[in-house]
Amino acid sequence: MPIVDMLWSGWGDPERAERLPESVTGLLRELLGVHDEPAQPVKLAEIEPPAARPVPLADIVGEENVRTDDETRVRHTRGKSTADLLRIRAGDVRTAPDAVVLPGSHDEVAAVLARCAENRIAVVPFGGGTSVVGGLTPEAGAFAGVVALDLRRLDRLVGVDTVSRTATLQPGLRAPRAEELLNEQGYTLGHFPQSFEWASIGGFAAARSSGQASAGYGRFDEMVLALTLATPSGTIEAGRSPRSAAGPDLRQLVLGSEGAFGVITEVTVRIRPLPETQAYEGWLFRSLSEGVTALRALAQDGPLPTVLRLSDETETMIGLARPEELGQSGGTGGCLAVCGYDGTAAEVAERRARVRTRLESLGGEYQGEEPGESWARGRFAAPYLRDALLDAGVLAETLETAAFWSNLSRLYDAVRLTLSRELSSSVVMCHVSHVYPAGASLYFTVVTAQGEEPLESWGRAKTAVGDAIVEAGGTITHHHGVGVDHRDQYAREAGPLGVAALRAVKDRLDPAGVMNPGILIPPA
Amino acid sequence: MPIVDMLWSGWGDPERAERLPESVTGLLRELLGVHDEPAQPVKLAEIEPPAARPVPLADIVGEENVRTDDETRVRHTRGKSTADLLRIRAGDVRTAPDAVVLPGSHDEVAAVLARCAENRIAVVPFGGGTSVVGGLTPEAGAFAGVVALDLRRLDRLVGVDTVSRTATLQPGLRAPRAEELLNEQGYTLGHFPQSFEWASIGGFAAARSSGQASAGYGRFDEMVLALTLATPSGTIEAGRSPRSAAGPDLRQLVLGSEGAFGVITEVTVRIRPLPETQAYEGWLFRSLSEGVTALRALAQDGPLPTVLRLSDETETMIGLARPEELGQSGGTGGCLAVCGYDGTAAEVAERRARVRTRLESLGGEYQGEEPGESWARGRFAAPYLRDALLDAGVLAETLETAAFWSNLSRLYDAVRLTLSRELSSSVVMCHVSHVYPAGASLYFTVVTAQGEEPLESWGRAKTAVGDAIVEAGGTITHHHGVGVDHRDQYAREAGPLGVAALRAVKDRLDPAGVMNPGILIPPA
Repeated sequence: MPIVDMLWSGWGDPERAERLPESVTGLLRELLGVHDEPAQPVKLAEIEPPAARPVPLADIVGEENVRTDDETRVRHTRGKSTADLLRIRAGDVRTAPDAVVLPGSHDEVAAVLARCAENRIAVVPFGGGTSVVGGLTPEAGAFAGVVALDLRRLDRLVGVDTVSRTATLQPGLRAPRAEELLNEQGYTLGHFPQSFEWASIGGFAAARSSGQASAGYGRFDEMVLALTLATPSGTIEAGRSPRSAAGPDLRQLVLGSEGAFGVITEVTVRIRPLPETQAYEGWLFRSLSEGVTALRALAQDGPLPTVLRLSDETETMIGLARPEELGQSGGTGGCLAVCGYDGTAAEVAERRARVRTRLESLGGEYQGEEPGESWARGRFAAPYLRDALLDAGVLAETLETAAFWSNLSRLYDAVRLTLSRELSSSVVMCHVSHVYPAGASLYFTVVTAQGEEPLESWGRAKTAVGDAIVEAGGTITHHHGVGVDHRDQYAREAGPLGVAALRAVKDRLDPAGVMNPGILIPPA
Repeated sequence: MPIVDMLWSGWGDPERAERLPESVTGLLRELLGVHDEPAQPVKLAEIEPPAARPVPLADIVGEENVRTDDETRVRHTRGKSTADLLRIRAGDVRTAPDAVVLPGSHDEVAAVLARCAENRIAVVPFGGGTSVVGGLTPEAGAFAGVVALDLRRLDRLVGVDTVSRTATLQPGLRAPRAEELLNEQGYTLGHFPQSFEWASIGGFAAARSSGQASAGYGRFDEMVLALTLATPSGTIEAGRSPRSAAGPDLRQLVLGSEGAFGVITEVTVRIRPLPETQAYEGWLFRSLSEGVTALRALAQDGPLPTVLRLSDETETMIGLARPEELGQSGGTGGCLAVCGYDGTAAEVAERRARVRTRLESLGGEYQGEEPGESWARGRFAAPYLRDALLDAGVLAETLETAAFWSNLSRLYDAVRLTLSRELSSSVVMCHVSHVYPAGASLYFTVVTAQGEEPLESWGRAKTAVGDAIVEAGGTITHHHGVGVDHRDQYAREAGPLGVAALRAVKDRLDPAGVMNPGILIPPA
């Protein structure tokens, strides 16, 4: 039986795939100048991956945990960036792994890595398979084989420490199941990125995920208190206390390493009491600049909602923040913000009242609960929408960055200017979705005609906008990660000596260079 | 003119040195069995460091910035641990640097490091000189020379970004001056460790300092948003946004590196509005365990005071939390906690009321403002007290650790048991001084007779207690750093592969191994 999760050619549960209403596709096709017949995906059964090279791992994990059937290999070939989808829809699986390997313990992971290092077999750690930065597509041409190390068997809640309010989790645990297991004991992780329904705990850690409730619960890397990393050279365990002055923080060296050093086999994270209640509400600001000033005030002086996000004029107009009502927005103008609150009823009421006073004094107009609840209902829906757009001949993709507050409008302008220059006809929307006292993230959605060579034209635009981000002083990624797609700009951001330091670590932990080759760290 | 700061043989401003009242010394001597005549320090003028080897750096920093006079060299020989003081009081300056070098810019630092690497001259970065872990005493026997790189000329507030609420500071800026410069613009850093009056910004970053107001303002490493590191192989700049998913956090690789990779030449840190008012108060708990439960409740569910600390029964009895009243404590029993509040008058009043309700429900008895204010007045005085004790033949030293809440009492017991086993007659006191949702720090003060060979007997006890901390699952240091003194236990904590990863970074950034040799990273 092949290993089946998500729709192989797109996002999520195939049962939930929806087509856009004709009115919307018609509008979009006209607006963006889409004239060609949209290309439908090839048939899964017709895709033939290259012949599988043998991988000597069955004695470690058991015969049944080395999968080489075509469908399983195809399904582990790529992540879920729009470029990934365009390629897989076209049946391009040239980079399919030779086998999908399913280890059942830390020791099995460690033994697989050592064996792969001996045999020059590249290893791609695979959690939920939701990378949108080419994090599952290594440069493995020089290797004797490639295995996708699917961590789904490492799916236990190892333990909950109710005194310290921490939970120890295995990396293959998917987010909804982790949340379910914690909820049963009265706790929540509070980590809800857009990939929530499919992503894994290990992926959150390896790629420094940040969830929609980050204002209240923090980023995933801020939740991690301890971790275990299996590498081809042995194991690193880090984290004996929340904070320490014992040298550089090894946890922070592993977080964000995207499988290039090894495989995270366990994390201990902060947990919180399950909130008694949740509330959402909408706010309208006259301009993006006014809205940003208001968000900054909350981030710097409080009170902070649990969820805090602000759409720019275009995103507000199109109503992307409320996918249920796409295309039906009344065109009121201005910028919609969504605030969400978790806590006891009393806490939520008190915090809402204080936020309300603050936002009203900063020019915000309260819009009631409906816009917030609409956002909350549709919060995981956008990737489905992308599939529908692809079917309609429209290319949709997202990209994100972050900067200090004083640099945010320069960064916003640089990204928009570059995209409008690179893409002849496109709609660019943006929201601020993660705030800190010193700065915030910007999350852009781009919609454009696929055209004749969508991979090439989007590739050029993506490179240009990445360069523009680096030049405008932003970080190349706030929460998607580096993968292969951001690697060149990441090298500019970290600088040659920063990259050299990380390469030195990689050379020590993974001397054969088998761990996710080409991901994160540029070849020397 | 020699470079003169602190009392060469002890702590702080020589004018502020005080002797203990006879009643106290008499009591202590009796209690601890001190019978010998206390040894007074040798005379500074009589100390002769070894002949200075030439260091070819004058062309880089200017003749006047390469100091080789005896007094300046003696004053840059060691830090301020009790072992350091015992040695320097005995005139032991065998490890004196050959020269004290004062660079005036990042470029000069970089050039000095490159030159020292070429000439195999060890470099000891020197900020405030307040290390208590042997961080200024490298293992430089194999080198052609040793220079102390005194960063006092890099003492500027480079800029304040009022929009992002950040300040960019040079490393040689001393904490009181940094605070003064920020206060002038209406801001505070909020970082007040016990070393505050003398320590430097660069030292805070390099050793992951944590201040007494950490509950409100965070640790220094949490404040750092960007930094520049000069290394013998070039420069690393890190930090384009508060948080990022662009790879491992390079800032967190530099923070805590204690000069072993290079010299931090600039940091950008979070700043806050100068509080309108400050208030302090005392609370009494019947037992340490009850007090710890109360602190944990505040750390996990709030509200958090700005300062939050809890003395154990012994420390409460001796009154060390209120140095003004040392020995006068009424012996009420129980454990004294101090809460401090920064903010507007309204915020402080509201937060105090909420903390009061919470602590009363957890068994705390409000003690009024006096015990809190007494603590605040004496908060930087303890190191002076240590000098007075040394003069009286008493050895006093502190050590600290941290762990998750569920492991805190095991760690507390392990430290006390080990010290009582190793030191025949001693008083051991402890306080919890830094709290997190998942855990807290423990800060111990040990007072014992110096005896005939204080360095040897304390050295044995210190090793035993460090081993006990590691075995009990604590971190070897929460905010003092590793230096040479904690290096062996640090190696156990980080594990062989963790140390190997850091050594790989060091080998890449400092191939000649001239940066603080033997500090932090054990020799290969």
